[in-house]
Order: sequence, then structure tokens, then C-alpha cells
Amino acid sequence: MERFDIHILGCGSALPTTRHNATSQVINLREKLYMIDCGEGTQKQFRRAQLNFSRLNHIFISHLHGDHCFGLIGLISTFGLLGRTATLHIHCFPELEELMRPQLDFFCEGMSYSVEFHPFPHGCTDIIYDDRSVSVQAFPLSHRIPCSGFVFREKPTAAHIKREMMDFYNIPFSQVGLIKNGADYVMPNGTVIPNSRLTTPATATRSYAYCSDTRFNINNTQYIKDVDLLFHEATFADSEAARAAQTYHSTAHQAAEMAQRSGAKRLLIGHFSARYTDERLLLNEAREVFPATELAEEGKVFKL
Amino acid sequence: MERFDIHILGCGSALPTTRHNATSQVINLREKLYMIDCGEGTQKQFRRAQLNFSRLNHIFISHLHGDHCFGLIGLISTFGLLGRTATLHIHCFPELEELMRPQLDFFCEGMSYSVEFHPFPHGCTDIIYDDRSVSVQAFPLSHRIPCSGFVFREKPTAAHIKREMMDFYNIPFSQVGLIKNGADYVMPNGTVIPNSRLTTPATATRSYAYCSDTRFNINNTQYIKDVDLLFHEATFADSEAARAAQTYHSTAHQAAEMAQRSGAKRLLIGHFSARYTDERLLLNEAREVFPATELAEEGKVFKL
Repeated sequence: MERFDIHILGCGSALPTTRHNATSQVINLREKLYMIDCGEGTQKQFRRAQLNFSRLNHIFISHLHGDHCFGLIGLISTFGLLGRTATLHIHCFPELEELMRPQLDFFCEGMSYSVEFHPFPHGCTDIIYDDRSVSVQAFPLSHRIPCSGFVFREKPTAAHIKREMMDFYNIPFSQVGLIKNGADYVMPNGTVIPNSRLTTPATATRSYAYCSDTRFNINNTQYIKDVDLLFHEATFADSEAARAAQTYHSTAHQAAEMAQRSGAKRLLIGHFSARYTDERLLLNEAREVFPATELAEEGKVFKL
Repeated sequence: MERFDIHILGCGSALPTTRHNATSQVINLREKLYMIDCGEGTQKQFRRAQLNFSRLNHIFISHLHGDHCFGLIGLISTFGLLGRTATLHIHCFPELEELMRPQLDFFCEGMSYSVEFHPFPHGCTDIIYDDRSVSVQAFPLSHRIPCSGFVFREKPTAAHIKREMMDFYNIPFSQVGLIKNGADYVMPNGTVIPNSRLTTPATATRSYAYCSDTRFNINNTQYIKDVDLLFHEATFADSEAARAAQTYHSTAHQAAEMAQRSGAKRLLIGHFSARYTDERLLLNEAREVFPATELAEEGKVFKL
């Protein structure tokens, strides 16, 4: 199975601590890297994770709170110092470009590559990015300011060729590409060999949904139905449910309910409030509702 | 002796590594904190150093390269989240406020305290800040863009009262303040007791000079004469002297020569290039010229 890994670079919330970094994740899908959010210190966490800067071409920013985007300018500058040439694409609300452009003009003048912003509107539910490996759909979360979740859906790979059938029917190599993509094979004598005899179906595709920051909103399950892994913020424990509602954040219990109600296979919780020195409290509360829950942690990699 | 400590929060250069943070230092002078430079990740290093955020009221920024100022916005935001009320004063070139103001307006709206910029011009050689404990003088360094060094000069404390003389002459407590500040005492019978018999002089004042980033420029010794501790950047080893000159940085050897020629008592080197995995090479090269040299390192505290 091809790689679909989630690297946790930071899973703290707004107040930084010595234990947690501000929010950032990197998805490694078939050796291409996609970043979600970029809090202060992300570039250092990226190095620590021994990821390859040159494989990162797309960054998705969920919302314009500092703990989700203050690391961008440093990351962009460092890419310039490293002589990057490939365009870096940033997918975000329109306000981010306005805010960053003066800084980019001043600090990154004469850089060897360009930064291209791909704005999407508040409340967007479209597929905002698409390549051969993945599609990324935005959907609105319920936070104090406009905030977007993202679903990464793997694209199907081509079907697998049955080698022994290729040999049996003496099929020329030139036909392999067509057959992988679904074509039947017509023998010189006119006999049609259906594609299903020549191939086994591609591996099932996988999906990852990212929900941070948001208060509990059951309507949002429509966007994240049946994902293989759901990341959901769990800033607070149940005892702080009132504070969670007030600050538009979720409790671990609520994150688990979202996982259960949306049909997720696994749940990953993060965006922990600085008040917790041991997040197992949050883990236990989530597992009471949804046993297949894990805790995010800097440096950890979750494989799909 | 009252406290005059230099905390190293970051001593790397422009390219961040997992070993070094971007530049920042905090001076603790008589329990008041003064920050010099604020690269990305400074707020986290500040916490690690277990310094008290509420004692920091003044930040001095040497120049507008990202590795010296990208941590400001995160630090300022965090102070807001923590409910700070005291004004935070930032001393810097005028361009910094222009660059930061849109970000502050957007990310820090409604914050419980204000940020006040105190611009000083390129090439400034004035005392740019002054309080009961310290004066801070700016002076120009020789970098690719305008860049300022800073000399922190401790103010003299009041003289120490000789308790036994106070008792001997039966001097009332109300006179202590005046005598500490240099007054003689006139006895009821008109006899004048000179101040020198009643006090011992204040401890000698100490001074700290900060030079980063700069290429070797012997003219700059005029601003940093006879300091107790000189911090001087030493980005490169001697073998990279050409690259140092080209990028307007210094070698360890040159830093040591600056210490020697300016009459510094001790030298601290930092701003190490990412190419060095062991800075003892730089230390050894500096010590050949100036034996009282030490290496900066994150988390270390240098006492004056």
C-alpha cells in the first residue's frame, strides 16, 4: 500500500507551552507532502521530523489565528535561503495574502521562487485542490472567526495487472497502460478479454479529515462521512464544557461524538489547552464514547 | 552585587537548525528584563528559561532580518492571551512598526494592553533608552541592511550606608536617603560629618555590548570601549573569511580581535552558521586571539 502518513508537528493550542508546539501537520501521500496549518516554530518541527522541504508544495491554512499561521513567514524565508525554485502554493482565506504580502515584499525580496496564494471564500464547501494523488475539500467549521476544515481523499491508483493473464493471452507491453486504466483486450482473432479477467481492482482509497478549531456542531458530520482517520480538536476536558462552548472549542467527549456520528474508523485528538499537563484525561474521556481514539503528539506519525 | 545576567534564548543564524534557535537574548538587570532581538520561537525559549513574562517591558530589535524579529508577533499575541496590561515598548528602526501594524491590527485586536514603538534612525549613536537601572546606547553595525548594536550600561546604585557610623553619630532614619545620595550630615551642634565617613561607594557599574549582525569593522570599537562583556557574532570560522566578508558577517577570529582592540573584559560569541555541528572550532579560533572567550548556547546564562 502506498504511503499515507500524518506527521504531527504541533498539537498545542493558542498558548504555547514547553511541551507542545503551535498547530501544524504534514501529510505524506505517495511521497508528496501537504501541510495543514503552520504555527510559530513549524519549520523547526519540520526539520526534526526529517521531512524533505523540497517535497512540500502545498500549504492549507484553516483560519487566521496566530497559532495556525505565524510560522509561515519563517518557513517561506528559509525556503528562499535554501535556494528553492518551485512555486509554493498557499490555500487559505483571502485575508491571509493581504496580511502577508507587505512582509513578503520586505523580507523575501529577490527570493529564488514565488509564493502563490489560492484564496477560497469563507464557508467554502468546494474541492479547493486536486492532483493525481489527492483531492482536498474545504468545509466550514464553527469557530469565533471564519475557519475551514479539510478532507483529503486519496485518488484511486490504476488497477493491478495480473501478470500471468498477460502471459497467457500473450498481450503486448504496449497495451498495459490501457488495461490498467480499464480497457478490455481484443485478441488478433477478435476475441474480447474483459478487463476484469486481466486486472485486480486498485487498493481502496483512504481519506483523512481535519477539524480544528471548532465547537461541537453535529451538522459538520455531513462533510466528513466515513473517513479512515478524523483529526478533531479536543481543547478541553468535559469539566470545561462551558468554557469550550464559550471559546468555540470542543471537549474530548464531543470530538469522540463527532467521530462516532460521522462513521470515522479512527479518531485523533489534539489542540490541547495549556492547562493539561497529561492529556490522558482527554484520551480516556474520548475513548468512553469512541474507543479507536489516539492522542496527537509532536513527532508522532499516524499511518493510514 | 545586584543581578546583571544575560540569558541566551537563541544563538543560531538565519537558517534554523534543530540545535539552535533564531537570535534572542534577555538581560536580567536588577530583576527587570530587557530583550534583544526576537527570532521565531523566542516565546517558547523564554518559557524554557523560566523567565517571568510580566517583568519584560522593553524589546530592542537590531535589524529587520527575519531571524531577528519573526518571533515578535507570536510573543505579543501571547501576552494578549495572558491578559497583560502594561504597555510593551519596542525600540527599533521605523520600518518595523510599518510592517507590524497591519498584523497587530488584525491578530491582536481588542488586546488588553498596547504595544508602543520607539523608532530610532539608521546610523543612530544616541542613548535610545534610559531608566533608573540602565542606559541603552545604539550604534551602527556593518551589515547588508541597516543594523544597530546596543550597549547596556548599568546606572550607579546609591552609596552603601555604614551602619556603625549612623549609630555613632546618632543620625535619624529620615536622613538615610539624603546621605545615600551623597549629602553630608550636619549634627545638631553644627559639626559637619562628610559623606565619605558615612558611606562606602556604590559597586562599580557594569556594561554589556551586543554586536550582531556585522562584518569586521574596527571603527566600531569606539562604541564598545572597555565593556565587561562583549557579545559579538562569529558566524564563520577562519576558513570561511571570504564568505564572511561577502555576507557582512564576522569570523570568530575577527570577533576576538574586536574584543581585544575594544578592551572588553570577556567575549561571548554566537550567531553560528548552520554548517557547524560543533562550535568548539570557532571557540578555539577566538581564544587564540582573546582567551577570555565563551560560546553562547541556548539556555545558558552569563553573569556580569
